Amino acid sequence: MASHGFWSLGGQNAGNPNAGSQSPSTPRAWCQAAAQKFPGGLGSKLCALLNVGEEAVDKPVDTSTKQEEETPAETCGCNKPCNCSKATTGFSELYSTDLLPALDGDMKTMTFLQEVVDILLSYIVESFDRSTKVIDFHYPNELLQRNNWELSDEPESLDDILVSCRATLKYAIKTAHPRYFNQLSTGLDMVGLAADWLTSTANTNMFTYEVAPVFVLLEYVTLKKMREIIGWSDGRGDGIFSPGGAISNMYAMLLARFKMFPEVKEKGMSSIPKLAAFTSEHSHFSIKKGAAALGIGTESVICIKVDERGKMIPSDLEKKILEAKQKGLVPFFVSATAGTTVYGAFDPLIAISDICKKYDVWMHVDGAWGGSLLMSRKHRWKLNGVERANSMTWNPHKMMAVPLQCSALLVREEGLMQNCNQMHAVYLFQQDKHYDLGYDTGDKALQCGRHVDIFKLWLMWRAKGTIGFEAQIDKCLELSEYLYNKIKDREGYEMVFDGKPQHTNVCFWYLPPSLRYVEDKVEKQKRLHKVAPVIKARMMEYGTTMVSYQPQGDKVNFFRMVISNPAATFEDIDFLIEEIERLGQDL
Amino acid sequence: MASHGFWSLGGQNAGNPNAGSQSPSTPRAWCQAAAQKFPGGLGSKLCALLNVGEEAVDKPVDTSTKQEEETPAETCGCNKPCNCSKATTGFSELYSTDLLPALDGDMKTMTFLQEVVDILLSYIVESFDRSTKVIDFHYPNELLQRNNWELSDEPESLDDILVSCRATLKYAIKTAHPRYFNQLSTGLDMVGLAADWLTSTANTNMFTYEVAPVFVLLEYVTLKKMREIIGWSDGRGDGIFSPGGAISNMYAMLLARFKMFPEVKEKGMSSIPKLAAFTSEHSHFSIKKGAAALGIGTESVICIKVDERGKMIPSDLEKKILEAKQKGLVPFFVSATAGTTVYGAFDPLIAISDICKKYDVWMHVDGAWGGSLLMSRKHRWKLNGVERANSMTWNPHKMMAVPLQCSALLVREEGLMQNCNQMHAVYLFQQDKHYDLGYDTGDKALQCGRHVDIFKLWLMWRAKGTIGFEAQIDKCLELSEYLYNKIKDREGYEMVFDGKPQHTNVCFWYLPPSLRYVEDKVEKQKRLHKVAPVIKARMMEYGTTMVSYQPQGDKVNFFRMVISNPAATFEDIDFLIEEIERLGQDL
Repeated sequence: MASHGFWSLGGQNAGNPNAGSQSPSTPRAWCQAAAQKFPGGLGSKLCALLNVGEEAVDKPVDTSTKQEEETPAETCGCNKPCNCSKATTGFSELYSTDLLPALDGDMKTMTFLQEVVDILLSYIVESFDRSTKVIDFHYPNELLQRNNWELSDEPESLDDILVSCRATLKYAIKTAHPRYFNQLSTGLDMVGLAADWLTSTANTNMFTYEVAPVFVLLEYVTLKKMREIIGWSDGRGDGIFSPGGAISNMYAMLLARFKMFPEVKEKGMSSIPKLAAFTSEHSHFSIKKGAAALGIGTESVICIKVDERGKMIPSDLEKKILEAKQKGLVPFFVSATAGTTVYGAFDPLIAISDICKKYDVWMHVDGAWGGSLLMSRKHRWKLNGVERANSMTWNPHKMMAVPLQCSALLVREEGLMQNCNQMHAVYLFQQDKHYDLGYDTGDKALQCGRHVDIFKLWLMWRAKGTIGFEAQIDKCLELSEYLYNKIKDREGYEMVFDGKPQHTNVCFWYLPPSLRYVEDKVEKQKRLHKVAPVIKARMMEYGTTMVSYQPQGDKVNFFRMVISNPAATFEDIDFLIEEIERLGQDL
Repeated sequence: MASHGFWSLGGQNAGNPNAGSQSPSTPRAWCQAAAQKFPGGLGSKLCALLNVGEEAVDKPVDTSTKQEEETPAETCGCNKPCNCSKATTGFSELYSTDLLPALDGDMKTMTFLQEVVDILLSYIVESFDRSTKVIDFHYPNELLQRNNWELSDEPESLDDILVSCRATLKYAIKTAHPRYFNQLSTGLDMVGLAADWLTSTANTNMFTYEVAPVFVLLEYVTLKKMREIIGWSDGRGDGIFSPGGAISNMYAMLLARFKMFPEVKEKGMSSIPKLAAFTSEHSHFSIKKGAAALGIGTESVICIKVDERGKMIPSDLEKKILEAKQKGLVPFFVSATAGTTVYGAFDPLIAISDICKKYDVWMHVDGAWGGSLLMSRKHRWKLNGVERANSMTWNPHKMMAVPLQCSALLVREEGLMQNCNQMHAVYLFQQDKHYDLGYDTGDKALQCGRHVDIFKLWLMWRAKGTIGFEAQIDKCLELSEYLYNKIKDREGYEMVFDGKPQHTNVCFWYLPPSLRYVEDKVEKQKRLHKVAPVIKARMMEYGTTMVSYQPQGDKVNFFRMVISNPAATFEDIDFLIEEIERLGQDL
């Protein structure tokens, strides 16, 4: 069971990937004292903390060029002979079976976990440092072939485990990095992270109050607060935290169907008329995915036209509802989008709600991306009418930068979720418990066990207050306006749609100089289609920044810049533009 | 924005709930030196670590009796005047906006996170200590009313955040506690925990290789390994980690339907014949829940009789399939259970697979609970025939004690999941990326964003090896056999079914002395039904242990003891029996 280096078959960057974040000038005497005080890894931990505190913070880490070598066996991991005692009582002789619940496993456990935390703290500080890479990219086959990923019969030492942790982070994307703009979920909130560490440590399950008393109550408190913000009277209604916006949207569709045809739960779709759901051409694919799963079928999801800004056209919605009725379909569900994925468009909720009311159709608002604008006094008007909805998806893990995953479905009618989903499993939801069973909320879920996603949102809200979230959101919108103003008349740029973006989505083409005066429109579009993918690939290979691109309808590949990263500044926006031009000018 | 004590309106236990885990005899000189070295909380951190290292480990914490007071403002949190500098540069003056990405936020961030880690480390050590409570139980209304749960407009200081963290853990259930037996998921693995902390820090999403290169590859490696263990040739096939066993089972049903009627994806259930699914009377409720959601309807889930041990009776399966066909239903899905929730029964998979083959029906194995026995050379025969299944649910977060959530669906046919679920969203799954798109696995999921559940399983597997998981599982089964042998002939106990349990489920009634000789059977059952709930309520109020109970069919409430907690020992089993008798003898 020799400890062999994980990823050790690779090139010069294998071995001790995070070694670069250690610096050489530790006050040795203090380190030695600490090491004597704490036999084992705690000594080296203190030593490492001292290093980070005094040096690494001021001196950016160069991860790209430094020759990274295996830590010599004689040192503690500081990369110098500091007499820390790790080498002698080190992790290479320890195995997971030495940790708790092993007898006398306390110190070893604390030492091991502290060592992991040191790796994480170092990674966190590095992640916010603009001079580090957003990603140290390698192609899949390269990563697969050059490293030892094997899961074997025999255990590896804790030293191997620590090496694996460092390696995993070395090749991970730094989602906290101020120049990471690739997804709707970016950034890393420190209070949210602390809350997630606590959640992992509590390691429990949301199905009953019995096993998650605090978390169940915090979910209750937080959902009520969110419903108040939507504008539902006294925050009344229902809701749940689900594993992501797609599942939240699926819940909404399930509830809408059950509300109209409760017999579907027992008798299935063959007992009810053929349904029709409506959503805009620009809505998220999860509406169709949900319809496929729920046995409704993707063809029953009727796409409504959008205007040039990507907003649903209400008159087309009404027209399509009437057409569906004429075909004998039963319109049961309209999903309006508050913040579309690509354009960031807000559908006109008031007009849509009038139509839903007229035809007695469930109105859902998919606010996975844009729902958080309700927290902003300046921007919440974009969701005017949301209080008329029957349900709303709202993902705090996107614009509010809560760590993944954190998605809520809010429902106006109380009790409906319970009726729709409950199965009365007596082994879990015993009816003769000694406490108020109203808090055993698990039976209203599609899931049985459910991950605790609430604590990080609740703790962040506590730490920031509503005004803190507001400030964070307003700043992201300000940055996107800055980007829009910067490029809208800049040479080489074309906006995908006119006018100031409503959300932080800024959609644009970058035209390299060689393309700017091409006359043949077909040829120009064909070449332009290839520009964004190449620039993106180069961004990833340099590791300097990341932003998304895609085609949409008849529009060739364009960049979709989104800003949800609270670490981003005006300078980072400037950098993005410079980088696009640097990487794309020769195309 | 004064920092007010969270939960501070309560009784004597409010305020600083974890104070009990601090001990008074810190070597003050060392502490002072550390505090001088690290301005801010790091000093007190070292101080706290020193305390834990030297004292708290040996001296069990009495959480039930100690008078817990607010930490005086002059101390660092050690509850003594040690001159640590926390009080002066303390958290009560810091806010989340002082942390990264704030300028010069590095030290404050590390100090804050380290403080949280200290709280967590202290909680972990305490959790494994048998002299601490499994739970400090309070009724929902009591917790709701006596504490300040409010989410307000204004931010709270980091001191309040730390107090909230301590309070949350004070009232949490200690899932690591060696006497916590309440659910199928118990225990807290230290390597798994470390991996989950890293996962939170990496804070990314499984949808593409682009944003989760390492995790996507590790999912690939681990799923392949799991398929090899099932016995599928060369580990071929497909799979995904989903948010729990209920969703994994729903995936299986979705795939079975799509395999037989691929047109259902576009056209919905109204385009295909009426379906029938089959599962045993003792199977998990998620099969019906899935059928309701997918538009199949719970009435189309036909329950198959079980024998006295809770195993599906194959002849009844065949009979019900034939009956369904005669009614014009199309049998499409059989879910056999490998380890039922209550009895821990393993359905006879070989006989079931013969029937599935004969009638051309998809065979799913719900091994959420029992699937992990495949890791044990001694016990894997109980799943003989699983290699013939089309799909299998296997939850490493149960019997393998991987932190929640970690559930896998394994599928024998390659490509089916992709065809069933893909929606080709070009904004996410661009087809002109620079790397092999085979690793962008997100489109085969029901979800869009997907939490990283793989790393904790992979890292634990690495640390234990397959033989480590095997040893852990074998030990739990040995403990349950010990329990069975101990009570099967013991006065006052009756087994719910005869014979040695196949899994770790031991189902039994405890009859208090007053009930043992009651002649009237109806009266006896009526009174017996109330025994387990009362004992359970008392267990929770004392906080000494937790075990589940439920009725089943015509059987009144009985205890269902399950052992998945790697911390449990023979002595803990003895304790459980003594405790049931202590708490129930007067009933």
